[in-house]
Amino acid sequence: MDLVSITDVRNAAADIAGTVSRTPLLRTGWDAQLWLKPESLQPVGSFKLRGATHAVARLTPEERARGVVTHSSGNHGLALAYAARAAGVPCRIVVPEGAPAAKVDRIRALGVEVLLVPPPQRGPEAERIAATTGAVLVPPFDDRRVIAGQGTVGLEIVEDLPDVDVVLVPVGGGGLSSGVATAVTALRPAATVIGVEPELAADARESLAAGSVVVWGEERTYRTMADGLRLPPSELTLAHLRARLDRIVTVTEEEIRAAMGRLVTDARLVVEPSGAVAVAARLFRAAELPPGRTVAVVTGGNVDPTVLAGVLR
Amino acid sequence: MDLVSITDVRNAAADIAGTVSRTPLLRTGWDAQLWLKPESLQPVGSFKLRGATHAVARLTPEERARGVVTHSSGNHGLALAYAARAAGVPCRIVVPEGAPAAKVDRIRALGVEVLLVPPPQRGPEAERIAATTGAVLVPPFDDRRVIAGQGTVGLEIVEDLPDVDVVLVPVGGGGLSSGVATAVTALRPAATVIGVEPELAADARESLAAGSVVVWGEERTYRTMADGLRLPPSELTLAHLRARLDRIVTVTEEEIRAAMGRLVTDARLVVEPSGAVAVAARLFRAAELPPGRTVAVVTGGNVDPTVLAGVLR
Repeated sequence: MDLVSITDVRNAAADIAGTVSRTPLLRTGWDAQLWLKPESLQPVGSFKLRGATHAVARLTPEERARGVVTHSSGNHGLALAYAARAAGVPCRIVVPEGAPAAKVDRIRALGVEVLLVPPPQRGPEAERIAATTGAVLVPPFDDRRVIAGQGTVGLEIVEDLPDVDVVLVPVGGGGLSSGVATAVTALRPAATVIGVEPELAADARESLAAGSVVVWGEERTYRTMADGLRLPPSELTLAHLRARLDRIVTVTEEEIRAAMGRLVTDARLVVEPSGAVAVAARLFRAAELPPGRTVAVVTGGNVDPTVLAGVLR
Repeated sequence: MDLVSITDVRNAAADIAGTVSRTPLLRTGWDAQLWLKPESLQPVGSFKLRGATHAVARLTPEERARGVVTHSSGNHGLALAYAARAAGVPCRIVVPEGAPAAKVDRIRALGVEVLLVPPPQRGPEAERIAATTGAVLVPPFDDRRVIAGQGTVGLEIVEDLPDVDVVLVPVGGGGLSSGVATAVTALRPAATVIGVEPELAADARESLAAGSVVVWGEERTYRTMADGLRLPPSELTLAHLRARLDRIVTVTEEEIRAAMGRLVTDARLVVEPSGAVAVAARLFRAAELPPGRTVAVVTGGNVDPTVLAGVLR
């Protein structure tokens, strides 16, 4: 399978510079060898803006006129809506009925078209729109443009900390981890890129062990509070992880919760559960990790206020 | 009175680069003309690290050997402890008995000497230590080195947004606002620097109107939740504000609370009440402000978790 290259990632970096924030590497007050890459500080609160912005930037003039479509009630939908608006491209987001009103309102506030459908119809509805209107479907991770866009996180990490030893990156569908592993292994071959999953959604780890995609299913992965990490990898992302990721470590729900609290009190960052797993690995699984200068990617901060209040107790 | 100059601020920037984080300017998702300068992301959670680091950097070799001392249970004490440790300089922090254990523990964890004294004796005790040991007293704001260090916030704002029109900066003792007004008016004379105070601690606004320092007293200023903004300016900081600040606007406690909540949910930043007043002014007092590209300084994020949980409801 033809994998995304470092050149693809570099091209993505040039494409997204106007819309995406250049997040800093933050030192922590509690661990002199740990830096945070806070993608929670993107205007939409997650790294998803990088891949979405790059996918929009790569549209042909004809495709731009027809617009983009996706289905998501979460960070990818918000990111695509923001990216499309920034580029002046028409956008439709298919949202499952029952999604939190706050999230739907936020997408709608960006001035894009929101279509509410029964949950099982969200995928087919997005495909129907693409087929009938010619709009380009932008998937959340199973897409080379999206992977290259997310890879700019890795590019920036090596630019800011050229002698980084370890990069810890959350693994959900595998778009971010594929892109980051691509960039970091190309630019700093001595560094190790390690994926982090919740124990309750360790489908990527099992897929790597099996050599092909293993699907755990919603009834299993929905037990984790890390709602951004419930999906399994695709064939495309698994191929990247197999070639470029060192391995995957897992963390418990209690460790995720504790890492969220630590990030609030000691790094002053609002982080969603999925965004805290890499820090949880450094806090609680250090014995399973190589030593050295470590960067943990904090992927997003769109957390329900009641969930956040819960970890502050 | 001889004021701090832009050259002093530039020199400070060179001095602090190794210890202080270069915070980014963050766009917000809700206001296309508003950028945030999140000093809450410093390793100690506030801008105070800039002035403290600069004061330590300016010590003579003899002074370095004798060390530094201050009295504070808050951000300045934590900042000086961190700055001194980073420079390998001995440090003593005088803390009033009854200060929150979490804050005292955090200062102690930096390996500096902590002296607990009855609250009225904290100032005299710090002066006694300085007199008997030769340690250099580093005050929280009434100090040219500290003002120049805090001014680097303004330097970075103009570097990152050269056509900034308005800078909103919280006013407590006036160290930060003096430094920021110094840098911004020198580098971008067309910009307006506006101070923000809680209505319940508007002593700097009254001092500017009176032409000399007006002290409200603790019984009045302790009504505001913005505990970092309760002190009046000094003669030194008031002279800077008179010369370089356009004016001061005030915000209510309810507006501060709402701004904290907005920063959590829509900027994913943990902010203490004092750190939210500039954003509160932009959110609720826009009619009193000039239009244009606006930067709000978010000064710190060391908030009691129960206070934070309170604004999430």
